[in-house]
Amino acid sequence: MRVNGEPAALIAANDRGVMYGDGLFETIRFERGNAPLWPRHMARLAHGCERLKLPVPDTALLQREALAEIGDREQAVVRITLTRGVGTRGYAQPAAVQATRIVAASPLPRLEPAMYRDGIRLYRCQTRLGDQPQLAGIKHLNRLEQVLARAEWDDPAMAEGLVCDTHGNAISATAANLFAVIDGNVVTPGVERCGVAGVMRAEVLAALPGVAARNLPLAECLAADEVFLSSSVRGILPVRAVGDARFAAPGTVARAMLQHWCELGFSMGQA
Amino acid sequence: MRVNGEPAALIAANDRGVMYGDGLFETIRFERGNAPLWPRHMARLAHGCERLKLPVPDTALLQREALAEIGDREQAVVRITLTRGVGTRGYAQPAAVQATRIVAASPLPRLEPAMYRDGIRLYRCQTRLGDQPQLAGIKHLNRLEQVLARAEWDDPAMAEGLVCDTHGNAISATAANLFAVIDGNVVTPGVERCGVAGVMRAEVLAALPGVAARNLPLAECLAADEVFLSSSVRGILPVRAVGDARFAAPGTVARAMLQHWCELGFSMGQA
Repeated sequence: MRVNGEPAALIAANDRGVMYGDGLFETIRFERGNAPLWPRHMARLAHGCERLKLPVPDTALLQREALAEIGDREQAVVRITLTRGVGTRGYAQPAAVQATRIVAASPLPRLEPAMYRDGIRLYRCQTRLGDQPQLAGIKHLNRLEQVLARAEWDDPAMAEGLVCDTHGNAISATAANLFAVIDGNVVTPGVERCGVAGVMRAEVLAALPGVAARNLPLAECLAADEVFLSSSVRGILPVRAVGDARFAAPGTVARAMLQHWCELGFSMGQA
Repeated sequence: MRVNGEPAALIAANDRGVMYGDGLFETIRFERGNAPLWPRHMARLAHGCERLKLPVPDTALLQREALAEIGDREQAVVRITLTRGVGTRGYAQPAAVQATRIVAASPLPRLEPAMYRDGIRLYRCQTRLGDQPQLAGIKHLNRLEQVLARAEWDDPAMAEGLVCDTHGNAISATAANLFAVIDGNVVTPGVERCGVAGVMRAEVLAALPGVAARNLPLAECLAADEVFLSSSVRGILPVRAVGDARFAAPGTVARAMLQHWCELGFSMGQA
């Protein structure tokens, strides 16, 4: 792990990242030193910096630090965290922001081949995502909603949870975006009011022209022919069941997107 | 500053407080070694721990650490931060949570006597607080809404900002609760959907039977006879203006509550 470029595992206890969750992060999968979605991660990070009025970091520097942290690992997940740095007490920002930059590499989480082959089951979370257009889309550090949703189940047979907004629309999984195929049309929930504009979601939208980003009422989602998740770490996860609702898994669209994921240079699970 | 009981100024960069804002805090004013609102702070902290399923800390231990940090300072503000501690990557909670406890003392912020004597002006923030009943009321570490609202102005003539919810109700200041006196009735916005259930707000509610905690549409707030803020650090702040709207400052109720604040053992500003 490095903090502001130096090997370190600690940050100031009064960093605004700790005090207020005042910052952003990206979680980036690398394979053999390549991160196929890197430009999309950097674009989202820059957009988040603009939204939160944080200084935009030097992406070449971030890449050097990420590669140094990975070392000779074949596969890794790099988390880049940017905060508004150390501040005085109170919400007002320091006159001169000295951002804190944390770059850390972890092993790829265990990804069972069966997830891709047979699809996964989703837990139906009761936690709702609140509407907050000023923070929707960006990957900021205020993640208690996701923590609460993820804490609702510990059955390892459920690989993810389905989370709705307060209006009863399906929005996403706890850490992945959602796609549904309904009467041959591909739909993904809009992320203008809540949710995260996932990097792999953007990749799917670019690869599949004609996807509708719109409200997706839960009942409509559960009646879909096909449901799958997108994640920059786990790729495309076909969903075979949400509660009693069953889906073709992998369906035709998920299969094509899994193929696309592999063509980007990712492997389906561990290398 | 101390971290988990030891003098320290650093915490793990992969603490869940930094990674997700996964924790709570209290900001407690001390005068001559006393914190008159201490029991209310501890009650809110315990309630927050219950809501977020965090282990409830030993309040006697927190008090010893707070006093040790204050030393011989006449007046101080102690911030206690509790996080879910270091975790592995991902929203799922570690099997055994080892909470992180940060206790830090700061000087009392500069409080001008004129604020109490003549009232303050509020900036009208455009940032809206999103509805999230699962997090409303508690003082959690996800404070980007407050950071965004506070960043809207830097005119030092504005001591605070007025923040609304997404329905157009006045909710609070960026770091204080709100009271309005309307036709002789005292009203404070409910904090079941958004906002923080302030400790000094609870003290005012206990001291003034009959206060209505309800929706307070902005227009109704701006037409009030009297408006004041409550804060556990700054006490009672009479409001004399929000934009073009003018109020009696201090009005009768604010004057009584300022009196109550002093009777609790606080001074009106610096000792």
